[in-house]
Amino acid sequence: MRTADELRALVAAALAELEVSPELGALAEPVRYAVGGKLIRPVLCLAAAEALGLEAEEALPTALAVELVHSFSLVHDDLPALDDDDVRRGKPTVHAEFGERTAILAGDALLAEAFRLVATSDRPEVVRELAKATLRMIGGQQLDFEGGAPRVDVHRLKTAALFEAPVACALALAGVVQDERRAWLTFATELGLLFQVVDDILDGDGFVEELGPGGARALADEHAAGAHAALAELDVDAGVLATIAETLATRTV
Amino acid sequence: MRTADELRALVAAALAELEVSPELGALAEPVRYAVGGKLIRPVLCLAAAEALGLEAEEALPTALAVELVHSFSLVHDDLPALDDDDVRRGKPTVHAEFGERTAILAGDALLAEAFRLVATSDRPEVVRELAKATLRMIGGQQLDFEGGAPRVDVHRLKTAALFEAPVACALALAGVVQDERRAWLTFATELGLLFQVVDDILDGDGFVEELGPGGARALADEHAAGAHAALAELDVDAGVLATIAETLATRTV
Repeated sequence: MRTADELRALVAAALAELEVSPELGALAEPVRYAVGGKLIRPVLCLAAAEALGLEAEEALPTALAVELVHSFSLVHDDLPALDDDDVRRGKPTVHAEFGERTAILAGDALLAEAFRLVATSDRPEVVRELAKATLRMIGGQQLDFEGGAPRVDVHRLKTAALFEAPVACALALAGVVQDERRAWLTFATELGLLFQVVDDILDGDGFVEELGPGGARALADEHAAGAHAALAELDVDAGVLATIAETLATRTV
Repeated sequence: MRTADELRALVAAALAELEVSPELGALAEPVRYAVGGKLIRPVLCLAAAEALGLEAEEALPTALAVELVHSFSLVHDDLPALDDDDVRRGKPTVHAEFGERTAILAGDALLAEAFRLVATSDRPEVVRELAKATLRMIGGQQLDFEGGAPRVDVHRLKTAALFEAPVACALALAGVVQDERRAWLTFATELGLLFQVVDDILDGDGFVEELGPGGARALADEHAAGAHAALAELDVDAGVLATIAETLATRTV
């Protein structure tokens, strides 16, 4: 079983070598430009797959697909009509670099590439999990823009859906049946909410504005504890998954 | 085997009853608003499925998925940063009616719903065909915006891809093997190009500007003949498919 760092290196290498569809032509450049970052979601997918007895390589196209859905969501979320952000990960956002039209099409292409990749699996339920998570995430963005919904409800959709997707896809790849799924998905949801609260702590917004720094830290600790408790229910070697949860709880970037 | 009109009624009823994912919340309204029109692509999918010996109902989720990909492409194509169209099918476009942010998210949701629907099939190759066609279509939009490419190259991607998709998906659903695919896909490509040339004839632009009205009509006739010639190679009852080709060649709206 490989460490989280080894899995991340595997994902990074696969992304660097990823051949986007030749028909995309000049969109290949903004598509590649949009992909990158911490790669938490694909690493989570591979770690879950390995804990479930698969080789990480078997889950790699699915893991990349989840990352492309995440990238798609960022490209469209950054657009002037949505969050209107010009900088992400220390460089210009896709629309700031390539223009708005290209950013819309590149986001669309990322989403379609994600489904092309996930459909290389012979299990249609993997595709269904990714589609369901994508729809939840989009619904969460809508809820966020509308305002008025409890913050945690927004982030169960907007953020946690793309932490649940890599785990749900790994479960589908491994053919895990219904009654073992609950603890796995609880782990993923708690991880997603932990990620979001820590994000807000690092940015000083969101949950920090709502609960204060101490309240937000306590909430992060609750979600971290929830993630570890869910892992403890699983009859697998959860060492790498526990490390991922610890890394998310203590990250400073 | 049902007529094209009967198949269209089947598609229209299924679209009217289509339950979009509850997580989409308020996006359900613009998503539903965006769907409609002539329903050529899903009818083509069902007609191909029936000619291949399937019940149309078996292909219905896939047929709807193709239509949702088409709807997604129109919603994003109409956006201010792309074609900037305020009217489609005699009513305000999605962004004109609901705002740009909602139109971007509704388009994203339509694409994700399409993959949710197509993945209800147990055949991942159907998902792969739809993803491939979507990527070709997006690549065609990019090529169109760049300018300079031959018009027919643009429309092989931008337009014909979503005529090939319903046929390719029906072939995948029916488990048709490689050597029977060629004539089927030639039929679909010719149909797509026929559709586009007639569109330009009705709008007085595109191929009409390039070739004049007589030249465009001759080109339409060529593509219609190409579609019928491909059908003649198939060892199936192609009556309904021939009717679809005739309807596209002679349509006035």
